Amino acid sequence: MKLLVINPNISTDVTRLIEAEARRSTRPGTELTMATAPFGVAYIETRAESQVGGYAAMQVAAEAHADHDAVVVAAFGDPGLAALREILPIPVVGMTEAALVTACQQGSRFSVIAISQRIQAWYRETIAGYGLSDRLASIRALDEPLAHIGRVQEDQGDRLVALAERAVADDGADVLILAGAPLAGLARSVAHRLPVPALDGVTCALHQAQAMVDLAPTAPRGGSFAVPPSKDCQGLGEALSRLVGRQPLATTQA
Amino acid sequence: MKLLVINPNISTDVTRLIEAEARRSTRPGTELTMATAPFGVAYIETRAESQVGGYAAMQVAAEAHADHDAVVVAAFGDPGLAALREILPIPVVGMTEAALVTACQQGSRFSVIAISQRIQAWYRETIAGYGLSDRLASIRALDEPLAHIGRVQEDQGDRLVALAERAVADDGADVLILAGAPLAGLARSVAHRLPVPALDGVTCALHQAQAMVDLAPTAPRGGSFAVPPSKDCQGLGEALSRLVGRQPLATTQA
Amino acid sequence: MKLLVINPNISTDVTRLIEAEARRSTRPGTELTMATAPFGVAYIETRAESQVGGYAAMQVAAEAHADHDAVVVAAFGDPGLAALREILPIPVVGMTEAALVTACQQGSRFSVIAISQRIQAWYRETIAGYGLSDRLASIRALDEPLAHIGRVQEDQGDRLVALAERAVADDGADVLILAGAPLAGLARSVAHRLPVPALDGVTCALHQAQAMVDLAPTAPRGGSFAVPPSKDCQGLGEALSRLVGRQPLATTQA
Amino acid sequence: MKLLVINPNISTDVTRLIEAEARRSTRPGTELTMATAPFGVAYIETRAESQVGGYAAMQVAAEAHADHDAVVVAAFGDPGLAALREILPIPVVGMTEAALVTACQQGSRFSVIAISQRIQAWYRETIAGYGLSDRLASIRALDEPLAHIGRVQEDQGDRLVALAERAVADDGADVLILAGAPLAGLARSVAHRLPVPALDGVTCALHQAQAMVDLAPTAPRGGSFAVPPSKDCQGLGEALSRLVGRQPLATTQA
Amino acid sequence: MKLLVINPNISTDVTRLIEAEARRSTRPGTELTMATAPFGVAYIETRAESQVGGYAAMQVAAEAHADHDAVVVAAFGDPGLAALREILPIPVVGMTEAALVTACQQGSRFSVIAISQRIQAWYRETIAGYGLSDRLASIRALDEPLAHIGRVQEDQGDRLVALAERAVADDGADVLILAGAPLAGLARSVAHRLPVPALDGVTCALHQAQAMVDLAPTAPRGGSFAVPPSKDCQGLGEALSRLVGRQPLATTQA
Amino acid sequence: MKLLVINPNISTDVTRLIEAEARRSTRPGTELTMATAPFGVAYIETRAESQVGGYAAMQVAAEAHADHDAVVVAAFGDPGLAALREILPIPVVGMTEAALVTACQQGSRFSVIAISQRIQAWYRETIAGYGLSDRLASIRALDEPLAHIGRVQEDQGDRLVALAERAVADDGADVLILAGAPLAGLARSVAHRLPVPALDGVTCALHQAQAMVDLAPTAPRGGSFAVPPSKDCQGLGEALSRLVGRQPLATTQA
Repeated sequence: MKLLVINPNISTDVTRLIEAEARRSTRPGTELTMATAPFGVAYIETRAESQVGGYAAMQVAAEAHADHDAVVVAAFGDPGLAALREILPIPVVGMTEAALVTACQQGSRFSVIAISQRIQAWYRETIAGYGLSDRLASIRALDEPLAHIGRVQEDQGDRLVALAERAVADDGADVLILAGAPLAGLARSVAHRLPVPALDGVTCALHQAQAMVDLAPTAPRGGSFAVPPSKDCQGLGEALSRLVGRQPLATTQA
Repeated sequence: MKLLVINPNISTDVTRLIEAEARRSTRPGTELTMATAPFGVAYIETRAESQVGGYAAMQVAAEAHADHDAVVVAAFGDPGLAALREILPIPVVGMTEAALVTACQQGSRFSVIAISQRIQAWYRETIAGYGLSDRLASIRALDEPLAHIGRVQEDQGDRLVALAERAVADDGADVLILAGAPLAGLARSVAHRLPVPALDGVTCALHQAQAMVDLAPTAPRGGSFAVPPSKDCQGLGEALSRLVGRQPLATTQA
Repeated sequence: MKLLVINPNISTDVTRLIEAEARRSTRPGTELTMATAPFGVAYIETRAESQVGGYAAMQVAAEAHADHDAVVVAAFGDPGLAALREILPIPVVGMTEAALVTACQQGSRFSVIAISQRIQAWYRETIAGYGLSDRLASIRALDEPLAHIGRVQEDQGDRLVALAERAVADDGADVLILAGAPLAGLARSVAHRLPVPALDGVTCALHQAQAMVDLAPTAPRGGSFAVPPSKDCQGLGEALSRLVGRQPLATTQA
Repeated sequence: MKLLVINPNISTDVTRLIEAEARRSTRPGTELTMATAPFGVAYIETRAESQVGGYAAMQVAAEAHADHDAVVVAAFGDPGLAALREILPIPVVGMTEAALVTACQQGSRFSVIAISQRIQAWYRETIAGYGLSDRLASIRALDEPLAHIGRVQEDQGDRLVALAERAVADDGADVLILAGAPLAGLARSVAHRLPVPALDGVTCALHQAQAMVDLAPTAPRGGSFAVPPSKDCQGLGEALSRLVGRQPLATTQA
Repeated sequence: MKLLVINPNISTDVTRLIEAEARRSTRPGTELTMATAPFGVAYIETRAESQVGGYAAMQVAAEAHADHDAVVVAAFGDPGLAALREILPIPVVGMTEAALVTACQQGSRFSVIAISQRIQAWYRETIAGYGLSDRLASIRALDEPLAHIGRVQEDQGDRLVALAERAVADDGADVLILAGAPLAGLARSVAHRLPVPALDGVTCALHQAQAMVDLAPTAPRGGSFAVPPSKDCQGLGEALSRLVGRQPLATTQA
Repeated sequence: MKLLVINPNISTDVTRLIEAEARRSTRPGTELTMATAPFGVAYIETRAESQVGGYAAMQVAAEAHADHDAVVVAAFGDPGLAALREILPIPVVGMTEAALVTACQQGSRFSVIAISQRIQAWYRETIAGYGLSDRLASIRALDEPLAHIGRVQEDQGDRLVALAERAVADDGADVLILAGAPLAGLARSVAHRLPVPALDGVTCALHQAQAMVDLAPTAPRGGSFAVPPSKDCQGLGEALSRLVGRQPLATTQA
């Protein structure tokens, strides 16, 4: 099978981090296409940045999804996930959602370990949007500005482990989610130091994506994820117009 | 005071409808700037379209908010509302949220009357996102394709009133929200036919926007709506880059 | 327009505090009638006191609402609010509810800063009654007996600011509500010291009340806020009998 | 033991109905004092009427609770229940709450069968206030005006049974609560016609009240049900002033 | 009346503790039959142990319930409670549920004081299963291994009281539940040291069981607690086969 | 990898149905061991039967899990799932939970199509236990007694499809779960007739189980799913004693 992995932000070094971890989770015969958002921000930690990243993911997916069996949105917070599910005829998997459903199958409550204080609100709202707030034991986050987003694991590894330990001891977490694409791989490298299973969003997303392809679901003709009703559109680019608008009126790029 | 009213979709006839109703709700001294999304779809009824509309609203707001006292996002479902609140230094009001908080002050439970079956899922999730699901008595929607989005009131007025009456009698609604910018003005014209107060999103948004300006809140320096931390960005255009990215690296438009 | 502002407790010095702050929030042409409960307690911090204050507010409103365009219940906890909405033909706004809906439009989660430990349970239940528990970041309260209810701002201002700062830093509040009529005006005087917007219940209530009058809702003929069905009553006084009972059997005062 | 049973509305024929059913549920040695509200309405079906009834119940309880071991508030909706619990040194039991906790011990979900359409909103909010909305299968109510509140069982018995049967078959009720003091005794007389246990609020309240007395709880010195902090009061009458206000400033009756 | 009290674990010394406390709560004419699980573990603190204990309780109840008026499941967490309610024709009361419904009638929020860290997850899930999470202020638990389950009160009494005090002061508990059969009697012996009412599960269960018998509910013919539909079974033993399976195919013991 | 698939009821024909469908979902190299409960009932549709089936699953798993990489509990309602997760050192997957997390990744809300009216309560409570009630659009069930549990697909296929269609059209389901092991394979055979994706619990469970093994989680040393603390046990059989009790005191079978 062939998976399109979209990094909804512009950091190609994070894309490389994602790819390295993703390749550890592919089964024989699974191919990956990596894509990085052509516009947006360096990494996503706010609602505004997610709104941008979600639209970027739509653009990337519209242009690149053909010939793929599933799409992975590779940023915690799952920017654009529901939107992509509506417009694409193939399964779409999100890093956060995949980590959450994995965590739910490994314990009763999970904690999320995050890379910045600011990012917590966005994560909390994402989890609430999935209806899983009651399974969330806590979100714990680093409280210092990150010197370099691509080196957060090396620079902050011990602090992240300490946060994880407190989530288990004080907050009642049965499972830990080390959140955010910049932490791709950390769960694997520190698993032996942690008292409960630690999940990596990229890894979970890859396994769920392959499972979703295995299931071979038919694209819905009804319900709220059927292809949106045809309507006029403008300025979305040719690929996205075909998916969102059905009747591209114009292709002037916004 | 000066309000920027953004229609996050591309239909200028809907913008005109919004403007006509909005002007009935301005106080002496309140000026309106109307803006229509330069890219997007004819009207928003899905998560995907809202993702596009929210990004378009960010672009419009970034370019046009200067010299205004508040912004109104004039589409039901409030595309981009939370994103705009993070990046703008002035109050931002959404049609849905304004209608909901008004309804909450007029009764215990409200129903939403909507223009299409498909739009219901997006509305329900929007309301859930505000934490107000327990106040929602029902969503009732037209079940036929709309011939013309700009004439839905004339064509479907009686059907919408009938749905509203059932929401009161069968679902326990104390207040009705006639939802969607294409219905702007309908609540006013059918109020005398309905047993409970009927709200118009545009009207509610205008009154709340003026109230928010009256309150003169200071822009937050903390919490999750402070200006997002500075980070690299690319392809967002000059105006949005200044707001989202702080450090525009490139201005190549997506 | 003409607003009736009811202080549901017996402290005339608190009424004066409310009036002073309320007058800062009236628009040209808005007149205020201030009323103080003729019976009840000095200030309300328990369910029992709220039950008394709510009944007192009903008595005051029944007697004084004629010729007014809206009523404001000016005690945090909104004693009697829903009852007044059922029996009065004009909008009724509560200090708590007004502050909550304002906070919801300025951020994702809010904290309430309160004047006594005991009052927290009543506030928490009030907020839960509005279905907004998920938006509540925390309630933080002074933990010392108040020497004088009319001087709590001067005596405890710094402590209240410190509680507010912790609510933002530790509890994730995006907005602060400085709660209780005795704190009327404090939000304004300490706003510059706080990292997020701070709301004053009186100010919010006045702005919402004027917005509700602007909306000019029709009184409901159906739903659960229509005038209660006619039934026998006794001992309610002439004014309230007309509103609650329809058919006063007796006017012996309780 | 000695129980004070308070009818918070003014209908002495309903008091007699309550008494007749209550006496069937007393154990040897349990004595009842019946009390009827000296002011209020004929029966309570709205939030406004409950606000009045709750205050009336406070007045009655303040004057009559001495020498009793517990108080029963004998109206569905439990007017004044939490207030009474704060100010009285003895257990206070409510008809609704007692029926709900009994229902919870006999099944998973319960339905409430009510005597008027209007009363449903108040019941639903009461149940939500106890945090038990998820256990509520449905509320079903008569939809015609009641000719005589004291004869509703004779006049509407078959209709009430039919509503109850639909609640089991269509709504998934495991237990039925025949709600409202005017229905006292009906559960007993129609039990054999119903497929699941049917509860009578008076009966449940009497059994719970006796159980609470058996438990002999100590009055709280802490928490939110300790005696309210001492404060000035006015116009509450001597008995209630002693309980609510601690320091009666005046006894002019409101 | 005659009550069957089942200890769903194998510790006969805990059965004796339960019996001693239970006998203090029986009314004249109430007889107790004590039963201890013939298989299982020493005490239940996990979901796995509860699954075992619940099945053991079914076996005991099936064999011994004849000639009794009600059954009490005497372990916190109520192992097998819903199962027993489905298959037995008499009321079944659980220690946890009885304590929770009692607490709900004595305050707004309760805390549970528990004997081990591990047991907290199981308690929290039990309370959530009853839909009462919003009433739960906190669970606080001893954090040391128990030397002897039968002597935990003597060994850890002061620590348990300290936890209880913190639950009131820091967590907002109005009522305390001293949880677990090994703590039977502790609430009574330390009540005078605690600022709010302290409940004993055994005591609550006994009072509720007697109240349920007084109510004399008819066994349901409909709803989800009617006798399960007849189906083939195997290996359940003769008594349980009669209740669960209706058509015992085999009696080979598992 | 090697998976142990446990049918927690005694019907070997249902085991064969499960196996047939399970084999369609195995990847090359995945081996299945099928096991049927040695005691219990023909199929599980009540809480009582689930309590029995869960204990039977514990016995089977204890005896047979060695040399396997994961366990699948193959009955809707997931009897014993949490218990098995606590005591086994390998991943344990449940049919219901696997179907739910799959559905969550394919849409916003799902409906469950069930084989009997009675089974709905147990399903609803299972879903609530996972915290996913807000994602549940509806449960719809056959309303006639099943002639033969092994032939329900042939006998009732059209009725089940009709229920599924109503769940999409009337209840807003985005995904359908055809629930219960007796329906294994039906989703596949009727997928083309349904407007939205239809899930088969067995298929979902197999894919999730393989994904969980791929993830290779470490067994927890902390949290509430670590191996239960060592305690005395009795009558559990040798295998289960080793897992639950640590210190088997006796092996007399119950």
